[in-house]
Order: sequence, then C-alpha cells, then structure tokens
Amino acid sequence: MSYNKAPSITAETINPKVRIFNYEPCGEIVRHSERLQQEMDENPDSLPFPEVIQCNLGNPQVLGQRPITFFREVLCLCDNPDLLNKDEARALFSPCAIRRARRIINSVPGKDSGGYTSSRGIKSLRQAVANGISARDGYLSKPDDIFLTDGASAAVNTMMQILIRSHEDGILCPLPEYPLYSASIILHGGTMVPYNLTEDRGWGLEIFEVKRCLEEARSAGLTVRAMVVINPGNPTGQVLSITNQEEIVEFCRKEGLVILADEVYQDNVYVENKKFHSFKKVARSLGYDEKDLSLVSFHSVSMGFYGESGRRGGYMEITGFGDDVKRQIYKVASVTICPNIAGQILISLVMDPPKLGDESFETFEAEKEKIHSSFLKRAKTLEKAFSSLEGVSCNKIEGALYFFPRLHLPSLAIKTAESEGVSPDVFYSHRLLDATGIAVVPGSAFHQASGTIHIRCTILPDEDKIATMIPRLKAFHESFMNEFRGSEPYMNDLRR
Amino acid sequence: MSYNKAPSITAETINPKVRIFNYEPCGEIVRHSERLQQEMDENPDSLPFPEVIQCNLGNPQVLGQRPITFFREVLCLCDNPDLLNKDEARALFSPCAIRRARRIINSVPGKDSGGYTSSRGIKSLRQAVANGISARDGYLSKPDDIFLTDGASAAVNTMMQILIRSHEDGILCPLPEYPLYSASIILHGGTMVPYNLTEDRGWGLEIFEVKRCLEEARSAGLTVRAMVVINPGNPTGQVLSITNQEEIVEFCRKEGLVILADEVYQDNVYVENKKFHSFKKVARSLGYDEKDLSLVSFHSVSMGFYGESGRRGGYMEITGFGDDVKRQIYKVASVTICPNIAGQILISLVMDPPKLGDESFETFEAEKEKIHSSFLKRAKTLEKAFSSLEGVSCNKIEGALYFFPRLHLPSLAIKTAESEGVSPDVFYSHRLLDATGIAVVPGSAFHQASGTIHIRCTILPDEDKIATMIPRLKAFHESFMNEFRGSEPYMNDLRR
Ligand SMILES: Cc1ncc(COP(=O)(O)O)c(C=O)c1O
Ligand SMILES: Cc1ncc(COP(=O)(O)O)c(C=O)c1O
Repeated sequence: MSYNKAPSITAETINPKVRIFNYEPCGEIVRHSERLQQEMDENPDSLPFPEVIQCNLGNPQVLGQRPITFFREVLCLCDNPDLLNKDEARALFSPCAIRRARRIINSVPGKDSGGYTSSRGIKSLRQAVANGISARDGYLSKPDDIFLTDGASAAVNTMMQILIRSHEDGILCPLPEYPLYSASIILHGGTMVPYNLTEDRGWGLEIFEVKRCLEEARSAGLTVRAMVVINPGNPTGQVLSITNQEEIVEFCRKEGLVILADEVYQDNVYVENKKFHSFKKVARSLGYDEKDLSLVSFHSVSMGFYGESGRRGGYMEITGFGDDVKRQIYKVASVTICPNIAGQILISLVMDPPKLGDESFETFEAEKEKIHSSFLKRAKTLEKAFSSLEGVSCNKIEGALYFFPRLHLPSLAIKTAESEGVSPDVFYSHRLLDATGIAVVPGSAFHQASGTIHIRCTILPDEDKIATMIPRLKAFHESFMNEFRGSEPYMNDLRR
Repeated sequence: MSYNKAPSITAETINPKVRIFNYEPCGEIVRHSERLQQEMDENPDSLPFPEVIQCNLGNPQVLGQRPITFFREVLCLCDNPDLLNKDEARALFSPCAIRRARRIINSVPGKDSGGYTSSRGIKSLRQAVANGISARDGYLSKPDDIFLTDGASAAVNTMMQILIRSHEDGILCPLPEYPLYSASIILHGGTMVPYNLTEDRGWGLEIFEVKRCLEEARSAGLTVRAMVVINPGNPTGQVLSITNQEEIVEFCRKEGLVILADEVYQDNVYVENKKFHSFKKVARSLGYDEKDLSLVSFHSVSMGFYGESGRRGGYMEITGFGDDVKRQIYKVASVTICPNIAGQILISLVMDPPKLGDESFETFEAEKEKIHSSFLKRAKTLEKAFSSLEGVSCNKIEGALYFFPRLHLPSLAIKTAESEGVSPDVFYSHRLLDATGIAVVPGSAFHQASGTIHIRCTILPDEDKIATMIPRLKAFHESFMNEFRGSEPYMNDLRR
C-alpha cells in the first residue's frame, strides 16, 4: 500500500522525551534488595545477615512509621458518613474527629465524599489549608491561591508543563537533586540548568554559584524561567539559613525568576539553630509582595510526621501570578478532573490539625512528638556512625529524612568498579547490600557532580533496626577498606 | 543589562500547548447555573423556578447517587486497620467487608494503607482486577498487563504522552467527543484526527467514515498512531454492536493502529438487544492475540452503579505491547510516584465485588439493581419527553449516562443567537436554564459537526427531579418555539 502506515509501537517509536528521561531514583538497588528479601523469605539461612534494612526508601509508613490516629479517624468517617449518625461509632472515634468529619462532609457538594470536586480542590479544604499557611507564616494566604493536588509530584509536573515552552527554556535545579525535577523537565521538553550545592559548607546554596550557572545558561541562549529550591533538602538533609533564603529571594526577584519552592519537608527540622521558614514568609518580610515576585510553594502529605505517601495529597500555593495564568493552571489541572478526595482531606488536616482544647489534641501532640524525637535520635546516631567510618565525611542532618555522606575510597576500589563497568558509588552500595542487607542509594542517582562518591541513606528505619545495622555497617566498611587498600595509607586524613 | 531575561510569566508567555487547548466541557453553563443556585439560596423567590436541576454534570454522587455500602465499608476499614481488631467494629461493618479489608491490608507492603506503592499499583489489587477482567471476558487477563491509575483521565494522558512524538502524529477520535481526548492530544503536542459518528444510524460508528478520515490524514502527511473508541459513548449514549466492534478490530489490525478503548461505561447498558463487550474479548474471539493488535482498555471507578468519581481510581489494561514499551509506561507513571491507594482499592472492588455466599452479596446486588433500574426508568422517561418536543429528534439511550438530542430551531432563533454572538445551542441552553433552572450542555462543547444543533443531557438527576422538570421543559420549549417561529410552520416534519 502506498500510505504512511503507523510503525508498530516499540520503545524506539514512542515519544522521545519519554524515552530519554531517566527516572528510577532507587532503581537497581531496589530490585536487588527485593531479590534478596525474596531469597530470605524462601530460605532464611541463605544470606549472611538476618534481614534487609531499607535505608534507600523515602517511604515512611512502609518502613513502620505509624499514621496519626486523628487523621485516619477523620478519613475513615468521611469515607463512610453514615457512621456519623451511629451510636456505636462513638466508641471507635474521638468526638473531635466526628465533628471534623461532619464539618468536612457538610461542606462538600453532594454531602458525601464520592463526587468529582473542583479541579483545584474543595473550597472549604482550600480555606483550611490557607488558614494553616497564614498561621504558620504570619502573612495572609488566600484560598484562591491554593490548588490541592495528588501530591507534590503532580503539582511540580503541572508547573513544568505551564512554564516550559521548548528546550530553550531552562529551569535552575540543585545538584545533588531529587530526580523528580530532571525527569519532569525533560518530559516536558525543557532544559535543566543545574547549580551545585556546596558540600564543604554543609550543602549550602551559594548565590554566586547559582548566578554563574544562570549566566552560563543565558549565554548559551537559554531563557531561564524558574529556580527550584528544595528546603529542607533531599538528598542533602540541609536546611537553608534565613539569610540564604533572603539572598535567593533577592536574586530571583532581580533576575525575574519564578521560585519553585519544594517545601515538603517543612515539618522535618532537627537542629536548634534553624527553623523552617517558607519562601513566601521570607519574601513578605523583606517587603516584597505579589507584584515583586512569582512564587510557587509545594507541600505534601507524604513526609513530615504524617508520612501518608500513598494517599497522594498536597497543595501548591501560587502567588505573584495573574489571574490569567491561574486560569491556565486550572485548565491543566482539569485535564485529570480533580485531585483525589482522601488526599484533599488529609492535606487539610496536616495544615489544620487538632488545637488545644480538642479532645484529640493531646494524643495528636504525643504521637507527633514521639515520631519527631525518634527522627532526631536516629539522625544523631546515623550521623555519628557514618562520620566514624574511615574515609567518610558526613554533614550534619539538619532536616528532611536523609543524609548524603561522601566516601573517599581507595583507588583500587575505584579501579575495580570501573573494570566491572559500574561507578564506584554503585559498586560500594551493592557490596554493602550483599554483605549486610543494608540498602542505600548510590549518589549518582541524584546526579551528584562526578568525581565525588556519595550514598544517600534515610533515617526512616526504626531505632532498633538502626542499632542492629550500625555494627554490621562498621564491620563491612572496615573490611571493604582493607580489601582495597593495597599500599594506600588510612584515609581519615581525607576527611574535612 | 545585556542578558536574555525571563519575561514575567503571563498567559501569553506560558507553554503554548497549554494555552491553545480548550477544556471546559460544561464551562459557562456550569458557572451560570452556580450563579443561579447562589441567587436562589440568597433569595428563594427571585427566580421563576423552585430549583436548579443539573442535567449538565456527569457527577453521579453530587447528584444524589448513593455509594455502594460494601465498597465504603472496605475503604473505611483500610483507612483505619486498627478497627479490624476491635469488637465494636463488628456492629458497624459486615463480616465480608472485614475479611476483604484484612486481606487487602495484609497484601500491602508495610501492612497499612499509607505508603507509596509500586507505580503501577499494588500487586494483589492488580491481580484482583485481572481476575475480574478474566471473568468478564472469558479470556485470561494478567496482572502484569494492568496499570492502576488515578482515574481514566490520568491513564489517557499517560498513553497520549507515550504515543505522541510531534504534531505529525495523529490520533483518531470520535465526534461528538468527550473533550478529554482533544485536550490531552493538544496538550501533548499531537493532532486530533476526528471521525464523525452517524446520528442517523443511532450514533453508529461507520468504518468507511473512519477509513476516509484516516486516508485524508495520511495524505496530509500525518502518521496516525491510534484510534479512540468510547463504548458506551459519551455524549451519545450509544452502545456499539458486536459486528461493529469486529469491524473496528479488523480495521485497526490491518492499519496498524492502537485501539484506545474507553470502556468506563461498561456497567451502564440499558437495552435488551445489546451487551457490553470489551474490545479485548472481541479481538480474542476473532482469534487475534497480542502479536496481532495493540490495545489499551480504560476503566474507572467514576461511573457505573458505583459513581466514586472524586476517589480517582481506575485501571488500564495494556496488551499487544512489548515489555520495552511497558517499561516506558511505567517510567511515565513513576513521575507521579503512584496512584492513590483509596482509588486502587476501589477499582479492585469494582472488578471483584461480593460473590454469592458473601454476607454482603444480597445488599450489594440490591443496591446495584436499584441504581440500574432507576437509570433505565430515567433514560426511558427522558427519551420520551425529549422526543415529544417539536423539532427535536433523539436517539435511543442505549448506555452511559447521557443522550444527545438534536434541535431543529426556527431560523429566527438562529439569527437571534448570531446577533448575540453565541451559537444556537448555547443560546437555547442559556434560555432553558434561565427560564426553568434546567442545566444542559450545549453540543458544541463536544465538538459536534457545525451546522447541527445539539444539547447533552444526563440521566443523573433522580426520578422525582426528572418528573418535575419535564413539564417545565415542555412549557419552555413550546414558548421558545412560538417566540421564534415567525411565519415558519411547525417543525415536526424536520424530525427523522
Ligand atoms: C524533595 C521532594 N519533593 C517531592 C516529593 C514527592 O512528594 P509527593 O509524594 O507529594 O509527590 C518528595 C518525595 O520523596 C521529595 O523528596
Ligand atoms: C468517556 C469518558 N472517559 C473518561 C472519563 C473520565 O473518567 P475518570 O473520572 O476515571 O477520569 C469520563 C468521565 O466523565 C468519560 O465520560
């Protein structure tokens, strides 16, 4: 036949933007650890360790974190509003969960939780989120600036879809990076403009480095539209200082860049001398308002002390954009009709939790405090353990759920990795997993600058697991170093 | 300064693909009806009708459809697995809901419902969906072919993202269409290749028409990659005959087109002489298997007798693609990490509902039957009422939740609409709404061929509402026709 038949669909003939992006943050290590777990389930004595410990996954509840009772009670009642009128329910749910669920259900069109909602989310829940932001920041947040979303990832994708017109549009992103950003920039046809975080300064974000990258990108012909900042940071565990945030605001204002502020770890800060400050608060306290700066803040139900990752809830707060742009964002959101209702409810609870006087308040505070203080303890323990290893340097874990230690490995280890066709971080991570059952993510998954070797480790395994894993880690590391040391000296002098 | 500053973000400087697509299926009419509702709430006697009746929204539960008890019980227990161990819960939940929830929770990594899952969904739930498909079709479905999704819309977007490489790639879509398709094709940079459904033949899909459109597109240089079929149809309410489906399968096989089968209304069929047959079943019964035909079937928790639209659950079954392509689909899915868990659970319940012998079986069947028979009654009543109007022709409502009657309006009405700068269907719809409170969607929202005038009406308002609305509709229509008739004769002769 003469016509132009569709080639059958293969990976070679699909959308090349899909083909080229790489998104498997924990990739091969996850599969490998799953294989080991399965081997262990089938034959418990076949491996040289008693269990696989997943320091690779940022997945709180799968690693044993308990959900917040109040949140689940409200969710449960909203799923089944008939319960609200049953006496038996009083034995199972706290009075303030019942009140909250009733208030939510009464504010939902159709008075049940199963209908499509507005594409930006249910108005009363956006109001609850806005109230929570206002209380957090001390600056007014408006429900019309809030879009509820199926988690932060969906929101980030929406913004990339809005901002990117062609590969000549660039987006500034930190390295090491949370790979959602590079993936969604490539998928939407743009160019990632990386800037390096400075490991020597606690993974600090240095404006002159960002400026250098911006200028380089501009002289290569790119139009840089936005700057991504992840604070607290994944994978670095760093929390920006307020002075640093002020510099970023000034810089983006002057350069006309949208700030895309990934603030999903706002409830994960572990150091006394730093607090979480939203970029909006920092901008407003510098006296800048909507007309000075375009700012999108992303938040999520996935992390913090709540960890409701599989629920897919979140919001973005959009300020400094005209109504015309908001209408376009609304249009993109409407292509998937609306965010899921359970996620909408959860993010409203995260931002508007029980207050003093509510029957659930004490339990809520106790649960929250328990998780938080345990994170703190685990962070300290892990930081200390990794820092004590030969040739390993490790910044303070200030926030988020991760740290990103640097390994100075003997050159024989590096050569051996090379000869096996993998990078040294991958080599080390697989050796560690095979020998101890401890799974971490090789730093290259976060596009860390080459020439350095890192791994990312989470603080999510519980305290008991961490206690058992540390001696195994130490023993492994020592024998790894000895195996590859050859004639090289001990490597502690490499540590800063 | 010399550099290439980012222009501030306005609707003119965003991604043009976002700017150009148009997605507001119910658009201005929704806003108008909301304004009227608000006016009525504030001042009940200000309007010439007692209530707004929304025949414009495909949103079952917001229009009063009750959720299926068993589904909500399971959801509620999965939200709060602690309940599974409480005696008081036995008073509130059926034993088989407790069993099911326990089975689900035990199969979830972390044994709770708050963790990230696989990007394609929880394995045991994919298995449940696959079992349901196998039982429905009599042909084996495999869990590895199932991707659970946040509703059908998200799944359709994923497939468009995979299939479309540039505007030279075309996708065949029916007209009138459900506007998700044009929106997502444009958003992903492709070209929609419309084919007309034939109103005179009950909105039938005629292969020679599709072939004509395909050839035209090919001679214009397009590579046509896929054909969208919506069965049962929105907005047409049509159900394809099995012979027709066989023709479509033969055609797509021969032409190398992927079939994108939107089967979200598979549980909404109202005529004795037609049944729902999945495209997969039709293809397999013709003897075609994976190597002969690429096929994606979309389903959703939003419609049917369940109507859990705001929950955002669904699946796509992908057959006839290589593992390489499935890996790429997985990668796109992973950019938003995973579908929401409540939606995953619900679609597994839709495909694997209570069986004979389960304690909930009878209630479940009764609830389902009640909704179904009420749909049937409403469809008949509305079809009869619309068909009796002067100048209105209306095909049989065979399935889905809609019908799409054609209006033959006096030329003075058409001229008046023109002079007001709107199309005649918009003019009629707004007049109807203002006079009676009945909201319908103008046909042009579904990109119906110009030169004809249609409205889309749902069968979702309850029987009482429909009973009160019909006399109002008849009176309005009569006076509308009389107002614009001028010297024209009665228009019943225009009806086919
Ligand atoms: C920095 C960062 N942003 C966003 C996300 C994704 O959040 P969500 O689950 O809301 O999509 C994560 C999850 O790990 C993250 O680490
Ligand atoms: C034909 C058709 N496909 C898909 C959808 C969207 O389904 P979901 O809610 O699962 O995204 C609808 C909703 O109205 C529809 O009518």
